[in-house]
Amino acid sequence: MSGTSKFDATGKQNAGTATHDAKVWNVAIVGFGTVGNSVARILCERAPSPLRLTHICNRSVARKKVDWLPPSVQWTESFEDVLSSDVDIVVEVMGGLQPTEDWIRRALASGKSVVTANKQLISRCGPELISLARSMHQEIAFGASVAGGVPVISGLHEGLAGDDLFKICGILNGTCNYILSQIESNGVSFATALREAQKLGFAEADPTEDIDGLDARAKLAILARVGLHCNVQPASILCRSISAIDSVDFEYANQLGCTIRQISMAELKGDQLFAAVQPALVELSSPLARVEGSQNLVMSTGTYGGETVFGGHGAGGHPTAVAVVSDILAIARSKQAGVCEEAHAAEITPKVTADFATRHYLRFLVKDRPGIIATLATILAEYDINIEAVLQKPGCSKSALPFLITLEECRASLVEQALQKIALLDFLVHPCLHLPILVGDLHAK
Amino acid sequence: MSGTSKFDATGKQNAGTATHDAKVWNVAIVGFGTVGNSVARILCERAPSPLRLTHICNRSVARKKVDWLPPSVQWTESFEDVLSSDVDIVVEVMGGLQPTEDWIRRALASGKSVVTANKQLISRCGPELISLARSMHQEIAFGASVAGGVPVISGLHEGLAGDDLFKICGILNGTCNYILSQIESNGVSFATALREAQKLGFAEADPTEDIDGLDARAKLAILARVGLHCNVQPASILCRSISAIDSVDFEYANQLGCTIRQISMAELKGDQLFAAVQPALVELSSPLARVEGSQNLVMSTGTYGGETVFGGHGAGGHPTAVAVVSDILAIARSKQAGVCEEAHAAEITPKVTADFATRHYLRFLVKDRPGIIATLATILAEYDINIEAVLQKPGCSKSALPFLITLEECRASLVEQALQKIALLDFLVHPCLHLPILVGDLHAK
Repeated sequence: MSGTSKFDATGKQNAGTATHDAKVWNVAIVGFGTVGNSVARILCERAPSPLRLTHICNRSVARKKVDWLPPSVQWTESFEDVLSSDVDIVVEVMGGLQPTEDWIRRALASGKSVVTANKQLISRCGPELISLARSMHQEIAFGASVAGGVPVISGLHEGLAGDDLFKICGILNGTCNYILSQIESNGVSFATALREAQKLGFAEADPTEDIDGLDARAKLAILARVGLHCNVQPASILCRSISAIDSVDFEYANQLGCTIRQISMAELKGDQLFAAVQPALVELSSPLARVEGSQNLVMSTGTYGGETVFGGHGAGGHPTAVAVVSDILAIARSKQAGVCEEAHAAEITPKVTADFATRHYLRFLVKDRPGIIATLATILAEYDINIEAVLQKPGCSKSALPFLITLEECRASLVEQALQKIALLDFLVHPCLHLPILVGDLHAK
Repeated sequence: MSGTSKFDATGKQNAGTATHDAKVWNVAIVGFGTVGNSVARILCERAPSPLRLTHICNRSVARKKVDWLPPSVQWTESFEDVLSSDVDIVVEVMGGLQPTEDWIRRALASGKSVVTANKQLISRCGPELISLARSMHQEIAFGASVAGGVPVISGLHEGLAGDDLFKICGILNGTCNYILSQIESNGVSFATALREAQKLGFAEADPTEDIDGLDARAKLAILARVGLHCNVQPASILCRSISAIDSVDFEYANQLGCTIRQISMAELKGDQLFAAVQPALVELSSPLARVEGSQNLVMSTGTYGGETVFGGHGAGGHPTAVAVVSDILAIARSKQAGVCEEAHAAEITPKVTADFATRHYLRFLVKDRPGIIATLATILAEYDINIEAVLQKPGCSKSALPFLITLEECRASLVEQALQKIALLDFLVHPCLHLPILVGDLHAK
């Protein structure tokens, strides 16, 4: 609550709320960007009792130094200083894959525990790093790697440990959510919404990771591992970009009682993991439809507990730093107790597929002429696909006429086959936009 | 995922996913009602690796016995059998204050840890029981005591440990939520909605605990302790019943862009805790407005992480049992490590008040005659209260005319003083219904 430092004039931390004789754990922050800065601020302002910030490691320290940290904190440009110090917990918030991975390995190997917010790294080699940590009787925690400040990793791992989770579904990328909301509410094009988001700092100069789903996919892989105990590599999860979404799609979606969001889903069914990151239609009444701006939301479904929702700020220095500091505290607690080799639920390595059975939304843009519907309907019928409805917004140009076909529930792969044949038709102005319609209880049937 | 038992024919539990040589922790279930049954079912079907169900204690065992538990489980009517056994973790799901409290104390004193779903007991004497547990190097966990399967206790305690939480707001009672939704969607009276809820098993024969807020208040006291580190007794929290809410109130609330829900709120401001359980107007766009049936939702707000939402099934055997089993697993993990004396954030004992500063909704039912608005406005002005709007639904009987006055933001206590004076006026058919209007960011200013 207080904005003032709990360090006294000599730079020593106050005893604060520490219990008698509790050991103090030394913490190093590696990477002093937005998140690192926020972590330092929380450690300084709140001074959670068993923690002491001792090192900050970053390039160009002179440029980075801040005046609100106690003089006892050592600033260094060399990770070797951190490795050779008496630091107990290394906080990695520099990002990237290398040298980050090496540094984390070396920290663990030198008997330090690690807290990281690095989703790309953890989604790729989390299990190896966890094994390394265990072999050294250390821990690696990565609560901040998914959904920023939303405590979903600890929620799935601990709060719902008693359940058998089989499905995770969520909005994991605030940039996409912001862009889609803007197209929806202002009727602008994707390109305009993206430019606007870049101007406001909600999207990167190179927005590919966000727009094409790679960012969300890394997070989904981590959630599938923690919640569904599935060993899944992010590269095996299908990603589809939101860049083909147009404002007309929101008009059609609204007519169907839906909106469009970038949805990350993973559902375990036997030895198959149905997983994808893609734009999809979700009911306006669903919590997923109501996620705003950079908010994130994760819904997990368990055999016993049903649906549980976790929501909050998915990005930003302070919320992400809350997750980091919570992880540091958890490690300190567990170090205090003496780290144990925890019994982990066995991991399975499922066959990963994106072949969900759902209803489907097909939006065409055509040069209008008689017989188009008949041609499309004939091809769909060849694949045993049932048309549910055909919708056409009035008052559009005949030379680029958007219209919609919705399909009854069937497998995505079947629709994709039909669309390959349809793609050869000469009346198409653009390739057909194909989105799943996620209404009611989505099951990977 | 599987519905089949993981016990083999000899009644021994399979090793399942246990790590080598991991100790097995013996579990007793005390109270074999709906929740106890579900806990046994999860322990039997999932057989989480370090746990073994060894005892079930209940009155009239012969009537209670089920055939799907392994023969190795001992059924007993005597708690002494549990106390003298090698049980490590006692699960108390019998409810009530006595003999439950004594039994929990004796279990802890005899070196067993305890998991309980007992909100009334924990809200009244949680701190003492935690102290007793610590002094015996044991633990007491109560994740199931609030919001059933929603992992909010662990979320506040661990997932958000790095934040400085100062506000908790939520829907903690499914019965009230169901009744209010029914009044809203079917336009029925409170009495009719309650009768219907009782018929369907959503409300007890004596619904006082739910309707008058006592149930939610116990949960709020626990959340305030865990999340805000406030030592607060449930009896010090103001409760107001939902029984005065009429369908006309939903019509007026809708005109204001709101609905009405039973809201539990606690906000720490310096050494004051603003806390209450009461029906209130919430914006239709708020997550609180969209909670359905027996769902529960908790929003916490922190200095660093902002708002975080936890939602899910707030009641029911299986969801509550998930919380219980998650707690058992957490205790087993921590016993495995060697229980430590955890550094707890210092608790404060705040001054508890319900004197929130909000906008206010005053709904009158009057025998109509000229001058009523003038009279009311004069009294409100005496207390420096500003009227925001006056609304009157057309077509109502002159002898029992409902109309609405909304007030600009002011303290609840000021409104109550004015209402005491207003209560003396002879044109009132009923006492005025006074609800806070919670829109935007509610602050206990």
